[in-house]
Amino acid sequence: MIPPESLAPEAAASLRNRSCLVLGGGGFLGTHLCNALAALGARVHAFGRSRTEAAVIDRRVHWTAGEFNDIAALAKVIEGQETVFHLISASVPESSNRDPAADLSANTIGTLHLLELLRSGGVQKLIFTSSGGTVYGVPEHIPIKETAATDPISAYGISKLATEKYLALYHRLHGLDYRILRVSNPYGRYQAVHRRQGVVGALLHRAVTGEPLEIWGTGDVTRDFIHVEDVVAAMLSAHAYQGSHRLFNVGSGHGMSIREVADSVERALGRGPLERNYMRTRAADVPVNILDTSLIQRETGWRPRVDWEEGLADTLSWVSAQVESAK
Amino acid sequence: MIPPESLAPEAAASLRNRSCLVLGGGGFLGTHLCNALAALGARVHAFGRSRTEAAVIDRRVHWTAGEFNDIAALAKVIEGQETVFHLISASVPESSNRDPAADLSANTIGTLHLLELLRSGGVQKLIFTSSGGTVYGVPEHIPIKETAATDPISAYGISKLATEKYLALYHRLHGLDYRILRVSNPYGRYQAVHRRQGVVGALLHRAVTGEPLEIWGTGDVTRDFIHVEDVVAAMLSAHAYQGSHRLFNVGSGHGMSIREVADSVERALGRGPLERNYMRTRAADVPVNILDTSLIQRETGWRPRVDWEEGLADTLSWVSAQVESAK
Repeated sequence: MIPPESLAPEAAASLRNRSCLVLGGGGFLGTHLCNALAALGARVHAFGRSRTEAAVIDRRVHWTAGEFNDIAALAKVIEGQETVFHLISASVPESSNRDPAADLSANTIGTLHLLELLRSGGVQKLIFTSSGGTVYGVPEHIPIKETAATDPISAYGISKLATEKYLALYHRLHGLDYRILRVSNPYGRYQAVHRRQGVVGALLHRAVTGEPLEIWGTGDVTRDFIHVEDVVAAMLSAHAYQGSHRLFNVGSGHGMSIREVADSVERALGRGPLERNYMRTRAADVPVNILDTSLIQRETGWRPRVDWEEGLADTLSWVSAQVESAK
Repeated sequence: MIPPESLAPEAAASLRNRSCLVLGGGGFLGTHLCNALAALGARVHAFGRSRTEAAVIDRRVHWTAGEFNDIAALAKVIEGQETVFHLISASVPESSNRDPAADLSANTIGTLHLLELLRSGGVQKLIFTSSGGTVYGVPEHIPIKETAATDPISAYGISKLATEKYLALYHRLHGLDYRILRVSNPYGRYQAVHRRQGVVGALLHRAVTGEPLEIWGTGDVTRDFIHVEDVVAAMLSAHAYQGSHRLFNVGSGHGMSIREVADSVERALGRGPLERNYMRTRAADVPVNILDTSLIQRETGWRPRVDWEEGLADTLSWVSAQVESAK
C-alpha cells in the first residue's frame, strides 16, 4: 500500500547495494521486509524454515531454507553480509509457557550462537525484533514507555527480554552495533491465519469462511495493532539511525479491544452481525498493551501511517483471495 | 559470631522440624545457611558439587554430592522437602562473559528443570539467591532500589535476571511460593579464597601469605560488602515473611572502594603497608554497586548487624588458620 521508497526515505540511500540477511525472511514480517529491501536496491538474502508462497516474494530475494539452530547453515548465510535483520521466533506466547526451557533454548541460546557468528563474520549491524506485546507484562501505566518495568507473564516474553540483554552485552564487550524494536501486534497480508498468528488475521479468516469469531475472554483484552508496513518502515528507520538509543517501541500508540476488532471486521465484511464464541482467557494474555512510541518518532522521524480501516480492508482482500484460491 | 537463634528470631519457630533442602549447601553461603538451619531445629539436606571441609558443617546436616544438571539426582533429594533454598551458581561474572550460552544453560535452564521438579514434588517454598551486584549493571542512582533498571554487563547477571523472571512466571502459572534475595558482595569465613571467590577473602589470603594485594583497576571500584551471617539472617527472614513482596535487596547499604578494603586489611593484619599490584580493569565490573535495603528492613525487620571491622577480623582469623594448616 505504501510504495517502498517512501517507507523510510532517509533509509533508502543507506540500503542501496547493501548486503542484508533476513533471518525469518520467509515469514509474515520477513516477507514484507525482504520485498521492501529488494525494492530499495539492497542485496537481500532470506533464511528460514519455510516461506510464504514464492509468488509474493520479490524475485531478487535469494532464499535459503534452514533451521535457526543449524549453526553451520547459519554461518554459511552470514558470510559477506553487512546487516542482519533477526526476526526469528521459535515459539508463540501461549505455547512457550508449556515448555519454557525449550523456548529459552531455541530463541535465546540460538541467538547467542548467532551473536558469536556475527562477531567472527564481521557483520556490521543487527536489527532485532523483540516483543512490545509481552516483555512488559501487565503494565502499570498506559501507554508503556521503553523505561517501564519488564515483568513478562509468558516464557516467550522472558526469552525475548533475555535476548535483548545479551545484545547490549555484546555491544559493550565486542562493539556490536544493534537496534531492538519492541513491536506491538502487527497485522496485514501474509500473516499465517491458519496457525493463529495474530488475532486480526484469525478473525478475518473466520469471518470470510463463515465460522463464528473466536474471542478469548470477555473481549475487553486490549492490544496495540500496527500495520506490517509501518513495522517494516520502523525497521528501515532504525537501520539508518545513527543516534545513541538502542531500544525502541514500535506500535500504533492506540489501544483497541478484541471486541472492537470484531466490530471492525464485521463492518469491513459488510454482511451484518457475525456469530461470536467467547473462549476461556489465556494465561499468557495481559489485559492491556499499548505502546508509547514517542522515542522512535523523536529520534528517527518514523511514525505509523497506515489507517486502521484501510489496513484492515487490504488484509481482508488478501484473506478473501487466499480462501477463494483454496476452494 | 551471631548465635543462630538470634539471627532471625521471628524465623526460628517456622523452621523447627521443617524439611529444608539447600542447593549449593556445600559452598560458602550454603555452609553457613545449613549450620544455622540445623541449629534452629530444621531437618537439613545439603546438595551440591562439593563442600567445605566436613569439620565445619553441623553433623545433623545430611549431604548428597551431585551435579545441578543431574535431574534424576535432583528429583531424589527434592522428595519430601518443604522448603528449597537455591544457592547454586555455575559460573562467576568474569568467566560467564566468555561463554554466555553455557552460563545460561547451566544456571537458568538448570533452574527451569528444578522448577518443574518443585511443581511435581509439591515443595511449598523456594528461596533463591540472585545477584544484587550484577543484575542492575551500571546504576543511575545510588543506593540502588529493587525497582531500578536492570541492565547487566555480565552474562552472569543476565542469567540471574532471567531466572528471577521465571520464578515470577511459575508463581503466576502454578502458584509457586518464592522469594528472591538480590545479595550484594558477601564475605566471611569459608569463602573459597583460592578460587577468587570474593575480593575480601582474596585480599586477606594474599596479605596472610605475604603476596602483593591484587587490585583491579584503580582501586576506586566500589562495592557493598555484607557479612555472610547477615545474608543468612536475611534468608531466614525472607523464609518466614508472609507479605506480598517477592524480591529484596540484601546488602549493607554502604559502599567501600577496593582501596579502602585493602586499607582495612592492612589495619587488621597490623604489619604496616602491604605491597599492591594494580591490574587491568575487568569488563564485567561495574564501577559502583551499593544496594538500598529499606524494603527488606521495612517488610521483615531484618537489618545488617555485623560490624565491618569485626567481620573482617573474624574472616582474617579463619584465613590465617587455613594458611597455617596448609603449611
